[in-house]
Amino acid sequence: MVTERLSLTGDLLDENTLGKVLDVLNRHGVTFKIRRFRIGEFSSEPSLVELFLSAPNLATMAAALRESKTLGAVFDMDDVELVEADCDGVLPEDFYSTTNFTTHILLDNDWIEVENLEMDCGIRVWTDGEKVRAATCAMHRVRVGDKLVVGFKGVRVTPLEEEQRDDQEFRFMSNDVSSERPKRRMIAHAAGAMQKAKEEGKKILFVGGPAIVHSGSAPLLARLVAAGWIDALFAGNALAAHDIEANILGTSLGVDLKTGGSGPHGHSHHLRAINRVRRAGSIARAVETGLITGGVMHTCVTTGVPFVLCGSIRDDGPLPDVITDNVRAQDTMREYVGGIGVCLMVATTLHSVATGNILPASVKTYCVDSDADTVIKLTDRGTHQAVGLVTDCEFFLNELVAVLGA
Amino acid sequence: MVTERLSLTGDLLDENTLGKVLDVLNRHGVTFKIRRFRIGEFSSEPSLVELFLSAPNLATMAAALRESKTLGAVFDMDDVELVEADCDGVLPEDFYSTTNFTTHILLDNDWIEVENLEMDCGIRVWTDGEKVRAATCAMHRVRVGDKLVVGFKGVRVTPLEEEQRDDQEFRFMSNDVSSERPKRRMIAHAAGAMQKAKEEGKKILFVGGPAIVHSGSAPLLARLVAAGWIDALFAGNALAAHDIEANILGTSLGVDLKTGGSGPHGHSHHLRAINRVRRAGSIARAVETGLITGGVMHTCVTTGVPFVLCGSIRDDGPLPDVITDNVRAQDTMREYVGGIGVCLMVATTLHSVATGNILPASVKTYCVDSDADTVIKLTDRGTHQAVGLVTDCEFFLNELVAVLGA
Amino acid sequence: MVTERLSLTGDLLDENTLGKVLDVLNRHGVTFKIRRFRIGEFSSEPSLVELFLSAPNLATMAAALRESKTLGAVFDMDDVELVEADCDGVLPEDFYSTTNFTTHILLDNDWIEVENLEMDCGIRVWTDGEKVRAATCAMHRVRVGDKLVVGFKGVRVTPLEEEQRDDQEFRFMSNDVSSERPKRRMIAHAAGAMQKAKEEGKKILFVGGPAIVHSGSAPLLARLVAAGWIDALFAGNALAAHDIEANILGTSLGVDLKTGGSGPHGHSHHLRAINRVRRAGSIARAVETGLITGGVMHTCVTTGVPFVLCGSIRDDGPLPDVITDNVRAQDTMREYVGGIGVCLMVATTLHSVATGNILPASVKTYCVDSDADTVIKLTDRGTHQAVGLVTDCEFFLNELVAVLGA
Amino acid sequence: MVTERLSLTGDLLDENTLGKVLDVLNRHGVTFKIRRFRIGEFSSEPSLVELFLSAPNLATMAAALRESKTLGAVFDMDDVELVEADCDGVLPEDFYSTTNFTTHILLDNDWIEVENLEMDCGIRVWTDGEKVRAATCAMHRVRVGDKLVVGFKGVRVTPLEEEQRDDQEFRFMSNDVSSERPKRRMIAHAAGAMQKAKEEGKKILFVGGPAIVHSGSAPLLARLVAAGWIDALFAGNALAAHDIEANILGTSLGVDLKTGGSGPHGHSHHLRAINRVRRAGSIARAVETGLITGGVMHTCVTTGVPFVLCGSIRDDGPLPDVITDNVRAQDTMREYVGGIGVCLMVATTLHSVATGNILPASVKTYCVDSDADTVIKLTDRGTHQAVGLVTDCEFFLNELVAVLGA
Repeated sequence: MVTERLSLTGDLLDENTLGKVLDVLNRHGVTFKIRRFRIGEFSSEPSLVELFLSAPNLATMAAALRESKTLGAVFDMDDVELVEADCDGVLPEDFYSTTNFTTHILLDNDWIEVENLEMDCGIRVWTDGEKVRAATCAMHRVRVGDKLVVGFKGVRVTPLEEEQRDDQEFRFMSNDVSSERPKRRMIAHAAGAMQKAKEEGKKILFVGGPAIVHSGSAPLLARLVAAGWIDALFAGNALAAHDIEANILGTSLGVDLKTGGSGPHGHSHHLRAINRVRRAGSIARAVETGLITGGVMHTCVTTGVPFVLCGSIRDDGPLPDVITDNVRAQDTMREYVGGIGVCLMVATTLHSVATGNILPASVKTYCVDSDADTVIKLTDRGTHQAVGLVTDCEFFLNELVAVLGA
Repeated sequence: MVTERLSLTGDLLDENTLGKVLDVLNRHGVTFKIRRFRIGEFSSEPSLVELFLSAPNLATMAAALRESKTLGAVFDMDDVELVEADCDGVLPEDFYSTTNFTTHILLDNDWIEVENLEMDCGIRVWTDGEKVRAATCAMHRVRVGDKLVVGFKGVRVTPLEEEQRDDQEFRFMSNDVSSERPKRRMIAHAAGAMQKAKEEGKKILFVGGPAIVHSGSAPLLARLVAAGWIDALFAGNALAAHDIEANILGTSLGVDLKTGGSGPHGHSHHLRAINRVRRAGSIARAVETGLITGGVMHTCVTTGVPFVLCGSIRDDGPLPDVITDNVRAQDTMREYVGGIGVCLMVATTLHSVATGNILPASVKTYCVDSDADTVIKLTDRGTHQAVGLVTDCEFFLNELVAVLGA
Repeated sequence: MVTERLSLTGDLLDENTLGKVLDVLNRHGVTFKIRRFRIGEFSSEPSLVELFLSAPNLATMAAALRESKTLGAVFDMDDVELVEADCDGVLPEDFYSTTNFTTHILLDNDWIEVENLEMDCGIRVWTDGEKVRAATCAMHRVRVGDKLVVGFKGVRVTPLEEEQRDDQEFRFMSNDVSSERPKRRMIAHAAGAMQKAKEEGKKILFVGGPAIVHSGSAPLLARLVAAGWIDALFAGNALAAHDIEANILGTSLGVDLKTGGSGPHGHSHHLRAINRVRRAGSIARAVETGLITGGVMHTCVTTGVPFVLCGSIRDDGPLPDVITDNVRAQDTMREYVGGIGVCLMVATTLHSVATGNILPASVKTYCVDSDADTVIKLTDRGTHQAVGLVTDCEFFLNELVAVLGA
Repeated sequence: MVTERLSLTGDLLDENTLGKVLDVLNRHGVTFKIRRFRIGEFSSEPSLVELFLSAPNLATMAAALRESKTLGAVFDMDDVELVEADCDGVLPEDFYSTTNFTTHILLDNDWIEVENLEMDCGIRVWTDGEKVRAATCAMHRVRVGDKLVVGFKGVRVTPLEEEQRDDQEFRFMSNDVSSERPKRRMIAHAAGAMQKAKEEGKKILFVGGPAIVHSGSAPLLARLVAAGWIDALFAGNALAAHDIEANILGTSLGVDLKTGGSGPHGHSHHLRAINRVRRAGSIARAVETGLITGGVMHTCVTTGVPFVLCGSIRDDGPLPDVITDNVRAQDTMREYVGGIGVCLMVATTLHSVATGNILPASVKTYCVDSDADTVIKLTDRGTHQAVGLVTDCEFFLNELVAVLGA
């Protein structure tokens, strides 16, 4: 399936140009959607029609376009322009900056799908045997001699709505962050998406913040992990440290999770937990030695669910498993986003935005936070597909576990 | 039990004055607490001791005080000062303005407890047969000739901590509005307080906003009412109108509660519901005629739980049961606050603050809102005892129903 | 100018029906806009074109439509349906519920503009001499025998974008409540709108909450009033009470506005201020007697700017000028909304929503609040035109006074 | 000046023990404050007095304590316990975890002040020539053989209120995050603190987020830097990238700072800016080459004000100056906190909490954010001294520049 944009302008309606162009397209088996239709209000501005075309293959598209051109249709079928990088870690001037939508480039009469979709990257093109391939390339990964797309020519982006055609309700929800909505219904939708993803062999990514532990909900997350619902966990030092603190010392940031009270010197509990894991060498070693006997991290280790702990400048310690270099942490996260169908982002602005940055828009993304601002920031920064649930992580996880029977 | 404040000042410690005064109190069976203890740092400022005394009766207190006075103790045992109102609806200048804490006035050697505790009122004193009585009096209820307390003399206020001595955990929670806390534990505490109130023959007041209906939680509230957990409901036009809209038309503010979608013209649904109830004449009549067949208001009507619907200037309609005059609405609310042990305030800033204004501080008050601001406003305006749960009403009601088995 | 909707459906493009219809319209001097244009993807769904027509008068429109009809065009030119009310305060079943957009009804071949535009009302039609008139009618104002529109036939609503064609920037801003935006630019826009309104002889309405006084900004608002920028003030008991408290006692809710400190018993200061005004009889009388010597309310009284103080159930006192009955308060507000060009809503959710309810959408509305939720609530409840400035009232008023040179 | 705690318990008042102890202290010239005073309510619980002592030197203190001991006074004058680290990057079990308050340790009859005050660290002790020194030691900086304090013995912490004795108003403000307060007064206080810090030779640290650029306030911050008010800037990739984007392309996150509109492809503007700086090699080089001609970063470079740009996992690019390793970034921040008197934290939660973690509590800290949550998080995590201003950065910087005449 290839797609193309075509526009007609001028005094087209009197001439019935549009009708003729549509006939041509129809005859070739090229379907279309009207994207814009502006009829000039007589003599002032020119009329304009923009069509979005879909053809089964490039040859068909090319033939239909050639014929339409004779009727005055305007379109752009140029190849992408490639420039060689002349400096490591620097994209060429005028580089094409990616979105998180499905993207193709036109090269030698062939539409090539861009791999590893991710916003705010360049597009690198290379030859793999006979095949020309293209993939996103983060700025810091550019190496001298890489061929990168510049300008906008020959790049085609498939809008999100095309990709979400199958789930009107998800699209409806993603346009709204109001807190005055039935949440259990939305949580049931997330659970349904998780079940569907599993059926389709897709993976589920969980991104979480420490409030999951503070609110006493870590056992719920551990149950989801244990029951096989989570394929990868992205978090920071804090979630892991407080989860381990809770297991070793029964507190989270010093607050007793049973009584809700704060004991003396509780503020240092997470430091003591981190310190012991540092001595053990890693979280996995601390599980082996019996220092950690339960909780989210323990369940990840014992069930083999991979986790990526990304550092931040406000970290204490940190735990030995934390990747303190941000660029390396991003690259590690990238290793786990292939094949993700659903992403749950719970109670963390930092990690949600960071993960949103590297996810394709086609991943069904649920962002749960008690503050509507997190969702607004996430969508402001490009993760438009995110459905916001302004609610407690405790409520969300409790309901999710109940619906999934985890 | 009567209480009093006593202070000692000067070079007391060298002279052992404090020891002697404590001996006197002890001998009379007057117990005490040290309120303030400042020892002058030698020659600069005078030392000061303030004691808070409790005696079994006024005679004992008076005797102990008389003797302490000879040792230099300073205290104030003057009667309250009363002034006659000279204008309807206007308190005398320098009127004593009440708090919501237990209050006594001293008159003719007798401590009289002030009835109908409520903040921001005057204190009216009258003779009821042999007995002198005192009660709070809202400004607009003053009538010419009423005797009202002016100044601070002879008024004793019992601090809240005295009254909450039995529930340390409640006091602990009421100092905190952080959203990063285990909520289910707090909800369990509220449920426990409700059970205890019922056992002690106290009443439970529910104050609610329309988000209860918008979030699909009205059936949960209806179950609490049906199961006898709620003794009175305070709300506005909106909660009742959307509850009835949901029953008649299946929507809340036009949003379908089953599908989450918005139909065309849904914004007028609540108006249509209100209009029909206006035609019926009242909510009770609309229940009788079969117009309303379920929901919170239906359950209140059929189980005889009283409700007070207070008007506001943003009301549509309003429903015929809404009390549109605020002063009359406040007075109607006052009729229901006697004997309240627990108050649940859910998803409404306006009605929560309004109800907080007329509740004694001894009422265990739980304020549930997705926005921490509501709780902060409530406590800023004097309802210091309120425990804030920054969470969804849906989560709160769901858990509460589960814990109470309603 | 009259407007109409017209639709064409079927296999229109092959037949060039659209072209012919457009010719007809063109010939009659009827301009049009394409509202919807869906081209069926061959054989599956029918194609559809919807046009929005504008003609200089009804006769022209009728002639053009008649001719288009012969080409297959579909439209609706039925008169509105009217039903007599049979019950005071109750609209007929199936009543037409108004929006806040410019609305016309078709009656006896004449388009009648609906007066006193306001959302969530019925439309009442009556004869005024020779002329038929129509106006919004709030539910409670219906009287037996009133003729009211039912159903949707014969009602035409002009979308907001038509009305805001002249101010693209305002439309742009009203789609956004992000707090991360240049505010001074937006405040300058509000100032410009105020200047333009004044030049065009339109009025400016100010709706304010007590935070204006608490934040020490009352003198800024008083300057705007004194300089003639405000034509009417809507507020509640609290703004007026704290403004008067600040003038008489130097505090706002007991907080000293000079030092920021809270004195003892400060919580009763506003009650003392209210009590004194109640004794005086009214705010105007309290100004006359010299009790009130400055502040916002004083400036309103001395410059003759009308104010409407609407009661709420959380009011203390209230001040004698407060309209305690909400229905009467709404009706009083309605007396002042005619001719309003700009509305500033500052630091009040309750009064902003209430005012938004009775304003036509054509009024340029700026909603200033430190909490984005207020703006979201306002637009959720139908005041879509509101531009939200998530900022301090202090900053807003300070900048506004500076830009306007007040 | 050395301090100590002393307690007396038992039936002390009858025996006048307290009086005698106070005589002893007085005679030795040791001043005291009563910390706790609990008089057992006769026979139930023992009485208790806790005194906080201050003596001019340790010898005096020791003499006074020795004599008091004979009267039954109880105190603790043990040396700190030290343990050698046996593993790099790991503190000994039971390590003493620091607060951000002034701290001394007792070793060989000498009180040693702990250097580089910072919360959540260990205390390392070493010999520097004749002198024994102690300093905080972050967990990752521990090296085998380091001597570190364990347990609580011999550690003395001076409460914050001691240190803020000179500024009651600051203490008053730091207990409150209400948004309904006069902000200009608070900004004036911050300006005053900055002026005082400069007079006293102390430094001013500015911690900022990208909303400063988005809101169009970067020129204000640049003026503060240019006028010498800022001695160091802590920020992330985003503030610097958008500041440079604004300078090179006139937009911030693609929003035109002059018109407020969003152009096409604006979302890639900051990437283009970052890419060019990467090519230049560093921000300083980009200033030299004329790529960057104005803005905050330009002003820092040209005036020599140091900046620390700390990476985060949500960074694009990043800029070559960003320290991507968090542990190294923290260590770099630590190099600049010595001698700081005032810290302004503006519009960033991440960097504010991170900076708060490494600042002594004696630094006057103003935290400005449009969301009260940032301030609550900051104080929840130990930066209790922070004064919260819930307002726009634009308002704050505008007023600050005006008051300081920058």
